[in-house]
Amino acid sequence: MRVEIWSDIACPWCYVGKARFEKALAAFPHRDGVEVVHRSFELDPNRAKGDIEPVLTLLSKKYGMSEAQAQAGEHNLREQAAAEGLAYRAEGRDHGSTFDMHRLLHFAKEQGRQSELLQILYRANFAEERSVYADADARLVELAVEAGLDADAARKVLGDPDAYAAEVRADEREAAELGANGVPFFVLDRKYGVSGAQPAEVFAQALTQAWGERPPLKLIQAEDAEACGPDGCAVPQR
Amino acid sequence: MRVEIWSDIACPWCYVGKARFEKALAAFPHRDGVEVVHRSFELDPNRAKGDIEPVLTLLSKKYGMSEAQAQAGEHNLREQAAAEGLAYRAEGRDHGSTFDMHRLLHFAKEQGRQSELLQILYRANFAEERSVYADADARLVELAVEAGLDADAARKVLGDPDAYAAEVRADEREAAELGANGVPFFVLDRKYGVSGAQPAEVFAQALTQAWGERPPLKLIQAEDAEACGPDGCAVPQR
Repeated sequence: MRVEIWSDIACPWCYVGKARFEKALAAFPHRDGVEVVHRSFELDPNRAKGDIEPVLTLLSKKYGMSEAQAQAGEHNLREQAAAEGLAYRAEGRDHGSTFDMHRLLHFAKEQGRQSELLQILYRANFAEERSVYADADARLVELAVEAGLDADAARKVLGDPDAYAAEVRADEREAAELGANGVPFFVLDRKYGVSGAQPAEVFAQALTQAWGERPPLKLIQAEDAEACGPDGCAVPQR
Repeated sequence: MRVEIWSDIACPWCYVGKARFEKALAAFPHRDGVEVVHRSFELDPNRAKGDIEPVLTLLSKKYGMSEAQAQAGEHNLREQAAAEGLAYRAEGRDHGSTFDMHRLLHFAKEQGRQSELLQILYRANFAEERSVYADADARLVELAVEAGLDADAARKVLGDPDAYAAEVRADEREAAELGANGVPFFVLDRKYGVSGAQPAEVFAQALTQAWGERPPLKLIQAEDAEACGPDGCAVPQR
């Protein structure tokens, strides 16, 4: 079974929801048969690289609230994160474009390092005093190396704005086609969707349901064709 | 859409069937939305590492035919391969265990180099004068490097018989669960199966059918959960 998770590094509920999903997955009896894939989604796709803003300023503008009210929201998020065992900096975070991070995550996928890099990006953005937006190229190379990627290769990806851009856009198009207009958005075997940072129990139920309902394979009707089995390689008589 | 292909390096119809499938895929309008994954299948799982036998001897024993008759079968295969633009050595090939190659293919998958390595293994075994069985560890490291893998890392995988062994066994168990008792066996989105080296037209039809019938996503019934969208991050009122 394959679970695809559309999310954005800038999305606190993606950070929290990922931990809730992973809790359910860790307890799922068939977890070894589940493959997890990250898919790209930008909450703020029109923001230019280098256009950085404090999260509290952004929130107060967006919701027409005071910075103190925005701050209270962030403190609430810190509590929700703590309940999942995650550190969360409620103060001093900034916000910016995540496009380059998604490009880098696609490169990391090719290198078998996607889940490592995703976790490191979340941690740097939400838990640590390491901005993923300010002096981004150098910071992202540093984080890529922590994920086991080659520094020069990561630098090359970041330096070429076209590298893996089509892959990011394709993920975003697919999200729209699947009806996801917010993240995190979880898709199980392209059959079931789960929207939002649901409690672990909901993910557990979704995993069980999708696993149990995997349909029997339909064989495409066609003449027997050449194949090899334990008894040898056969050429059918037509 | 995802296409999983169960196959074995020792299986000539897998080599030919892969080319037929790839011909259909190259002409498929949604080919950029198709991911191809190799799955392990051993035709001769009980053969010990280092137990090598000429293919013609094996065929004549297995089918109770003369070596000349076996040779004629190989010449027929060479013609079928040539029709797909593939070179095929009808004489002098040997046969042995492919377990280590499947382990290495799982390592290559993690490194984003699986399809490269698979093609190189097929070519060495079927088209070139390079045995993948004799002096196997050195030969497989040589081929791994051609696929873009690190020599030391490949050597380490080959030197540890447990490395990726569980992944190979899991693929083989899944093949049995899906009803595949011969290879190549193609599975589209875990919904449709295609058995054998079918003509490219059959693969074209299967791709079109599976693509067209992708079901709309069912949302798992659950309360709205915290999510972020273009308009911000929302906490539902419960």
